[in-house]
Amino acid sequence: METIHNTQVCFIFTQMNLFSVLYLCSLIYYILLHIRNFESLVLHCIRFRNLIPVSFVLGFYVSLVVSRWWGTYQSLPWPDTLAILMASHLPGQDDLSQKDRAAVLRYINLTIALTFSMVSPLVKNKLGTLNAFMNAGYLTPEEVHILENLEKRTTKHKTWVPIMWACKVIERARKEQRLTSDSHQKVLITEVMNIRKQCGGIIGWNEYNIPLVYTQVVTIAVYSFFIFSLIGEQFLDPEQNYKDNTIDLFVPVFALLQLFFYIGWLKVAEALLNPFGDDDHDFEFVPMLQRHLEMSSLLSEPSPSDLPSTIVDHPE
Amino acid sequence: METIHNTQVCFIFTQMNLFSVLYLCSLIYYILLHIRNFESLVLHCIRFRNLIPVSFVLGFYVSLVVSRWWGTYQSLPWPDTLAILMASHLPGQDDLSQKDRAAVLRYINLTIALTFSMVSPLVKNKLGTLNAFMNAGYLTPEEVHILENLEKRTTKHKTWVPIMWACKVIERARKEQRLTSDSHQKVLITEVMNIRKQCGGIIGWNEYNIPLVYTQVVTIAVYSFFIFSLIGEQFLDPEQNYKDNTIDLFVPVFALLQLFFYIGWLKVAEALLNPFGDDDHDFEFVPMLQRHLEMSSLLSEPSPSDLPSTIVDHPE
Amino acid sequence: METIHNTQVCFIFTQMNLFSVLYLCSLIYYILLHIRNFESLVLHCIRFRNLIPVSFVLGFYVSLVVSRWWGTYQSLPWPDTLAILMASHLPGQDDLSQKDRAAVLRYINLTIALTFSMVSPLVKNKLGTLNAFMNAGYLTPEEVHILENLEKRTTKHKTWVPIMWACKVIERARKEQRLTSDSHQKVLITEVMNIRKQCGGIIGWNEYNIPLVYTQVVTIAVYSFFIFSLIGEQFLDPEQNYKDNTIDLFVPVFALLQLFFYIGWLKVAEALLNPFGDDDHDFEFVPMLQRHLEMSSLLSEPSPSDLPSTIVDHPE
Amino acid sequence: METIHNTQVCFIFTQMNLFSVLYLCSLIYYILLHIRNFESLVLHCIRFRNLIPVSFVLGFYVSLVVSRWWGTYQSLPWPDTLAILMASHLPGQDDLSQKDRAAVLRYINLTIALTFSMVSPLVKNKLGTLNAFMNAGYLTPEEVHILENLEKRTTKHKTWVPIMWACKVIERARKEQRLTSDSHQKVLITEVMNIRKQCGGIIGWNEYNIPLVYTQVVTIAVYSFFIFSLIGEQFLDPEQNYKDNTIDLFVPVFALLQLFFYIGWLKVAEALLNPFGDDDHDFEFVPMLQRHLEMSSLLSEPSPSDLPSTIVDHPE
Amino acid sequence: METIHNTQVCFIFTQMNLFSVLYLCSLIYYILLHIRNFESLVLHCIRFRNLIPVSFVLGFYVSLVVSRWWGTYQSLPWPDTLAILMASHLPGQDDLSQKDRAAVLRYINLTIALTFSMVSPLVKNKLGTLNAFMNAGYLTPEEVHILENLEKRTTKHKTWVPIMWACKVIERARKEQRLTSDSHQKVLITEVMNIRKQCGGIIGWNEYNIPLVYTQVVTIAVYSFFIFSLIGEQFLDPEQNYKDNTIDLFVPVFALLQLFFYIGWLKVAEALLNPFGDDDHDFEFVPMLQRHLEMSSLLSEPSPSDLPSTIVDHPE
Repeated sequence: METIHNTQVCFIFTQMNLFSVLYLCSLIYYILLHIRNFESLVLHCIRFRNLIPVSFVLGFYVSLVVSRWWGTYQSLPWPDTLAILMASHLPGQDDLSQKDRAAVLRYINLTIALTFSMVSPLVKNKLGTLNAFMNAGYLTPEEVHILENLEKRTTKHKTWVPIMWACKVIERARKEQRLTSDSHQKVLITEVMNIRKQCGGIIGWNEYNIPLVYTQVVTIAVYSFFIFSLIGEQFLDPEQNYKDNTIDLFVPVFALLQLFFYIGWLKVAEALLNPFGDDDHDFEFVPMLQRHLEMSSLLSEPSPSDLPSTIVDHPE
Repeated sequence: METIHNTQVCFIFTQMNLFSVLYLCSLIYYILLHIRNFESLVLHCIRFRNLIPVSFVLGFYVSLVVSRWWGTYQSLPWPDTLAILMASHLPGQDDLSQKDRAAVLRYINLTIALTFSMVSPLVKNKLGTLNAFMNAGYLTPEEVHILENLEKRTTKHKTWVPIMWACKVIERARKEQRLTSDSHQKVLITEVMNIRKQCGGIIGWNEYNIPLVYTQVVTIAVYSFFIFSLIGEQFLDPEQNYKDNTIDLFVPVFALLQLFFYIGWLKVAEALLNPFGDDDHDFEFVPMLQRHLEMSSLLSEPSPSDLPSTIVDHPE
Repeated sequence: METIHNTQVCFIFTQMNLFSVLYLCSLIYYILLHIRNFESLVLHCIRFRNLIPVSFVLGFYVSLVVSRWWGTYQSLPWPDTLAILMASHLPGQDDLSQKDRAAVLRYINLTIALTFSMVSPLVKNKLGTLNAFMNAGYLTPEEVHILENLEKRTTKHKTWVPIMWACKVIERARKEQRLTSDSHQKVLITEVMNIRKQCGGIIGWNEYNIPLVYTQVVTIAVYSFFIFSLIGEQFLDPEQNYKDNTIDLFVPVFALLQLFFYIGWLKVAEALLNPFGDDDHDFEFVPMLQRHLEMSSLLSEPSPSDLPSTIVDHPE
Repeated sequence: METIHNTQVCFIFTQMNLFSVLYLCSLIYYILLHIRNFESLVLHCIRFRNLIPVSFVLGFYVSLVVSRWWGTYQSLPWPDTLAILMASHLPGQDDLSQKDRAAVLRYINLTIALTFSMVSPLVKNKLGTLNAFMNAGYLTPEEVHILENLEKRTTKHKTWVPIMWACKVIERARKEQRLTSDSHQKVLITEVMNIRKQCGGIIGWNEYNIPLVYTQVVTIAVYSFFIFSLIGEQFLDPEQNYKDNTIDLFVPVFALLQLFFYIGWLKVAEALLNPFGDDDHDFEFVPMLQRHLEMSSLLSEPSPSDLPSTIVDHPE
Repeated sequence: METIHNTQVCFIFTQMNLFSVLYLCSLIYYILLHIRNFESLVLHCIRFRNLIPVSFVLGFYVSLVVSRWWGTYQSLPWPDTLAILMASHLPGQDDLSQKDRAAVLRYINLTIALTFSMVSPLVKNKLGTLNAFMNAGYLTPEEVHILENLEKRTTKHKTWVPIMWACKVIERARKEQRLTSDSHQKVLITEVMNIRKQCGGIIGWNEYNIPLVYTQVVTIAVYSFFIFSLIGEQFLDPEQNYKDNTIDLFVPVFALLQLFFYIGWLKVAEALLNPFGDDDHDFEFVPMLQRHLEMSSLLSEPSPSDLPSTIVDHPE
């Protein structure tokens, strides 16, 4: 965890270095010219810089961003529950039951993968076309063909079509009595629909993000604050007796600290604003898809040898 | 996304230009008259302008508006789940089952469309009368006649009547055993009621918005702040030795930045305050209705050729 | 909507006028006496007035009040869902079924009306006694008699007794097989209990409001702020060279604006604090009860001629 | 309601009086000694007092306390729903059914009473031992004996044991067919578990309160603020021309107002911080338990003469 | 409770002592050198220290941390409900039923223990390997073997595997008719899945904590604030007539108070930030696991002698 955030801290230090360099430049400018007008500009900057309510707007903005980031996390769909339910409600070891379990979980993982590819550039990169999904084992050639055909009926995203297929498989298993009760079917359908809802939530969080103008306003406020700091923090000739300018420290310790402070806070927001990328704190969608495949298979397809003797069927 | 928000940024720049022009005017006024009284007025404005707690009130107001905007988004009804459930729970390919599926989804989409037409002027424009709904395929002439008759019993909105019709269709399908279990019926009814509740939520968010006086107070505060800025930011003759007036920059950089900052923040709120219009960040109800129709049909009426062979009935 | 809020804006302007009059009075006082001591008082008021953190406390207070107001709104019970469920789950057109549907909805509306009469003075005014409920059609004479008898067993409010009656009616309908499945019964009971919970919520929101001392503290803070403004905003003789008193505008523009601003914000809170009265933004309980009666009947008792042909029973 | 809060307002006024007395003392001290050093101390206090961000920390703290107070209120368990469900789902008037209804509700009320006695000193006072519960009618001697025996198996609180008993009674009623369907049983069990969850919630709210150090920090901040006010608000000799000390009002109006304001705000928090005591705004657990007993009996045991004729069984 | 927090208060006092010592050091430095330059540095520090918005950022940060701490608490899984449900829904006293009850609760407690060992170093310490779980009675040797074998199929955490086993046991009990209805099975499965979801929630709260950079920014802000306080609070020679330096108190009362205040606030956050350790306010996972074992057995395995006569089976 610590190592990860070094990049962010690094970034902040980079900016602080940049600031220091620029500061040095204007310091030289100041030493060479030593014009009183420059000092007036400095005093002017100091006065107005403090009128920009950076800390306040950052507080509200970061609050909002953090709460959205967490809301997005809580919308992430997990196939684990469905895998367990399939294993216990459709426990048959016959060929048809095994195929049904595999099909339902494949369709669910497909919907999750389709959703992720809509929001995450990394997943989009890896699973950009239906053929890529086929090669990754999410789709059969026949299903690719069907999905392509559906393009004629609507150009809207077809992420929910595999959900319908999964429900159809469950319905057939019930009809053929391999799923032994309506109650079981309802439990399964409810969980499938729950995953669909969460996938829809992910798409919604992605599509309706915080208005861009809010982010722009905050970012411009913080950076303009520092441009004025760059000028306003110049130490003035103490002998001129300017108010509050009593010492010449050469290194603007306070300005650097403020820089660290505000830029750091802004970085918190930037890191969490779009959790679908590949920054720190972004959700790791690609490994997550792989994990889902592994766990789906592990939880829905326990081989009899993987079950403790507490569980095996009692001899009748 | 970026292109969309240009309009907002543009708007802010327009206002900044306006500000600049007005600023120039009073600058001329200042140069011509050069009265010391004007300078006194400027000092007075500077002092009092800062007493208006614009940043604070904007922070709380924007927080409230953003949370309501997101709450509204999460209340939006989607017919997709019901479409999938109809397809899997009432899967018959006979004429009656097909008609039932179509009827239920038509009624649900009708309720959604009626709700949207109550809150969105754009939808109202397109679907203003029952006849418009009929022409859009949401209603049959007979149903228009019935809804008009019901006007005699109550003048209240009749958005829930199609919901009742949908429940009746589901009940009949159960009675005629095309819907094979009570459990299935319950799942369908629950989802229909869920959509009704969300439609009711949309109407509620629209009807009980943030008290107008709150919005007025915030808006007046921001704009009066800038009228005082217009006067207070005039550069005064540095030779008069007014406190904090040490330089004459000609361009009021700081005032423009503050303008950008506060107006930008206010725009965030204005864009999200009423998400039912046709601004950026407003929900796109008209395309959404079209999408609902397409997806309802796609998900509830899969032709057998659209189903992968994994799903087709096993030969008995 | 706009016209409604005029009253509030009017109220604010009334207070601003009052302020202006009082201001004028003390202005005269100032002109007549022109004592330097008065000027000292003014300076003292200016200094201390700003120590009262009005904007901050108003921000937190209004946030709390708005969130409670919205929470209350979302607790409002609606009988519509139950009416639709009764119509579709107990669809019989025989005499007993019709009576059952009418009884259940009458009991539910009775509970809602009893709840509203506990929280809203307006409803209390109209439905103050059990006889008033009887005259309004909510109770039969026999039921009034029973409720009066129950007074002997407990003096606590008996709002839930009609809920029990409604459940008993549903139970009997199930026993007599007019309600055809346990699943249907459960759906109906769940919805009835949901309405009971919401009614309980309404009573809770009303009983445990924001501590009065909070409201008092905020109100006193705002008003004392303005008493000090009244004195502190007097323009002082600029020739005395008091700090920050450089101009005599005669009209205290800034004080009036602040007055508008803070009083307006406080009005937002006052309007929403008790949503059970008859102010703007209060919920309109009396029309709501009437609406509930109309919609209950409309949705639960569709005459066969009110149903589209899509819905009528298929000939067997 | 108004009369209740007088105690709080009284308390604030008591503190204001105390402040006034202390103020008078130091005033005398000031008059007697009239040392310039004292004046320096006053100026020092004024300057630093304002560095303590009392209003800000109070705002956040009160927000947190109010939200926890309301969360606790919403966790309160009510037996009413279960009583109604028992009456309608287990409606038999035979001896066994009546005993079962009584037992289940007694056990539920017992769990609620045990929970309340764990969190409220007042209830603890009244119901401190199992014998006290027995005398209050919550337990039979046999059950006291059993609960005491269970002490050997675990020393943890046994609040959930009566919940298990209640579930067992319901299970037996189902087995003996007095409870006529699995669906009914599920509804009852769900509600029983809901009450257990809410009781657990109450225990959690009580056990994991706001960290004590937070409360201490806030309280110390407010009171130290006022100790400094006591010194800093002394009126200084205006002739010494100290900045901002231009008038001698004898009565420190502003300090008293601030005292009222901050102490009042702190009182809001203190009143709501621990809602399990016997202050205003605390939940009245003792009357609540009595109410629960009365309502449980009223709602679960309607004598046939208490039911309107709409409900009585139809002759077959 | 009081005794616990002494450690925190102690810690704060330790820091205040440290501050005092450092303060003394620089005081000596100041007395010895008595350079005017030092005084300039002090004035510089005073001016800039106040630019760091410590109180504001602490307010937002503590709000966030407290809400996450409470969210984590509410995600804690409790096996009590499942134990009660197993006792009432699978009440058989035969050998198989007893084994099933024991197995299901053992698996649930195992999942909870596995979850806790992933997040809490204390539990990890005690239950670090599968063998440790076996020795603690959570696993049989056979199950350890199976879990180790599964390592070949995926390296991801296998916390959900016992959940699957528990579902399988319940499924078998249903198949063998010891669990008498689908409805019962559904209730049990739903509760098992609820526990899985809460365990998943715990893992999520632990994995996606508040971005480290946020915590770093806040901590650095508070501590740098105090380094500047250390210098800035030096009393300057009053005779030099520095603005606001009118008195020499020798003890920096205000600085110590501010230290107490801000460090105390920061401690609130630090105590709650990671509730999985062994600080105060951290959840006590080790005793909690022991409690779960005891309550699971107590609630799921009531010996007939532990049941009141109200509950024992009626003679048929």
